[in-house]
Amino acid sequence: MALKHLSDRLRVPAGSVDLGRLATDSTPHFDGNKADGEKALADLGPELLDLQTRLFAHRGRDTARGVLLVLQGMDTSGKGGVLKHTVGLVDPVGVRITSFKAPTEEERGHDFLWRIERAVPELGYLGVFDRSHYEDVLIGRVRELASPEEIDRRYAAINDFEKRLTDHGIVVLKCLLHISAAEQRNRLQARLDRPDKYWKYNPGDLDERQLWDEYAAAYQLVLERTNTSYAPWHVVPSDRKWYRNLAIGHLLRETLLELDLDWPEADFDVEAERKRLAEDTIA
Amino acid sequence: MALKHLSDRLRVPAGSVDLGRLATDSTPHFDGNKADGEKALADLGPELLDLQTRLFAHRGRDTARGVLLVLQGMDTSGKGGVLKHTVGLVDPVGVRITSFKAPTEEERGHDFLWRIERAVPELGYLGVFDRSHYEDVLIGRVRELASPEEIDRRYAAINDFEKRLTDHGIVVLKCLLHISAAEQRNRLQARLDRPDKYWKYNPGDLDERQLWDEYAAAYQLVLERTNTSYAPWHVVPSDRKWYRNLAIGHLLRETLLELDLDWPEADFDVEAERKRLAEDTIA
Repeated sequence: MALKHLSDRLRVPAGSVDLGRLATDSTPHFDGNKADGEKALADLGPELLDLQTRLFAHRGRDTARGVLLVLQGMDTSGKGGVLKHTVGLVDPVGVRITSFKAPTEEERGHDFLWRIERAVPELGYLGVFDRSHYEDVLIGRVRELASPEEIDRRYAAINDFEKRLTDHGIVVLKCLLHISAAEQRNRLQARLDRPDKYWKYNPGDLDERQLWDEYAAAYQLVLERTNTSYAPWHVVPSDRKWYRNLAIGHLLRETLLELDLDWPEADFDVEAERKRLAEDTIA
Repeated sequence: MALKHLSDRLRVPAGSVDLGRLATDSTPHFDGNKADGEKALADLGPELLDLQTRLFAHRGRDTARGVLLVLQGMDTSGKGGVLKHTVGLVDPVGVRITSFKAPTEEERGHDFLWRIERAVPELGYLGVFDRSHYEDVLIGRVRELASPEEIDRRYAAINDFEKRLTDHGIVVLKCLLHISAAEQRNRLQARLDRPDKYWKYNPGDLDERQLWDEYAAAYQLVLERTNTSYAPWHVVPSDRKWYRNLAIGHLLRETLLELDLDWPEADFDVEAERKRLAEDTIA
């Protein structure tokens, strides 16, 4: 397995791509099958944990950095699966997950980025957005939840926002979980077949599915207008759940590796503290 | 291994106990060694994940319940280790961890429970307090951060608060991570010996350590005044990290099992949705 440059492979090139032509069921840079992929993800766990602990160790210091993983995709594309299987590999104390639902009345009284700003992770943390500000140009556009002018305004506002995060030291890792309409059907069917999955089923998902092409066009626009050099998109083939989880694990790994985080220097006098402890008479 | 009634074993009996007489290095209800204990915890993972997913599946419904795991203990007792190794076994999307530090100026302008209330998990979630409102009668008492009358007032306020949570459907699982002063020395020493652990070392911990007996007395008072029938304390022998992690995993398991959570009923017409999906022409 040679995922070392997976981000190069999955990153949307400068400009954009035709999303409709990207495979949803391929497994770029990985040769194995499902069992191999699950094992590879488990094997990745300790390294990911070590890297994220280094990130966390710097919080509150001048050297602190942050990572914001943005998960977007059609219903059933597996945002929840990534949280459980990939994000679940690291130390939860250093993770800040926000699952965005339909905005509340209070949130609708503000600019669309207001609630997003409040969820930005503090430096030192791995923040994860399960859905995000992109909903405001996805369902927002498809369902005409705002005027066309307002929707158009949002792309630049998003870019400005992400630039500001980046300037603050947060790497914004944007992943589009790319599934086919056929695979979505399978997953909705599974939720209707198994009583232990009913809770994940929402009749509204089937309503949105009827607008598949409109959503696909809205995603295409997202790639065209918000694929910036400082916060590029990655399209992750997601028909195979195990590949999706593994690929995002590797994208996270590569992101953390690039931060080149050593353990922080002691911010106290190590020798003096050793001496104090040695002279300590407690117990 | 027969941890089925571990909570009975570790729960502080009605009234109180003499904390100073409780072992810190024992492994109640578990015969094995470290390797056995680590394997037992790993083996517990899937069941804990299943139980917590059921808890999460009910959120937003009338049937929703919640769990609040309160972790208290002397510095280095392993609150962070429990987060990483035990809480890390479940799905992070359904976990709400709050690590309480010294209160901010804004927080000090409020009643001591103000910031705690804001961190109470929504029903459906596993909330975890890494330190908690108990600090306000621990360091609060030892360091005289409030008047004696105010400190005394807080025990009853804490009981009222926990009763209200319980009445709302949240099980409050309180764990005192019980270590010896000698073991604390070992752990502080390790943090001073290893550059990859410097970030966990705080010279203030050694200052607080000089007040070991005062803290022990403050913990004893906590057990005497806040060990209620609706939110009892559990004293977890924590000199062995692996036992501490395993024991709290089992306490969580028992807590979730007692909620007897089935998967929620469908809140939609299953047959109608199956029919809609079957007739769907997308893809």
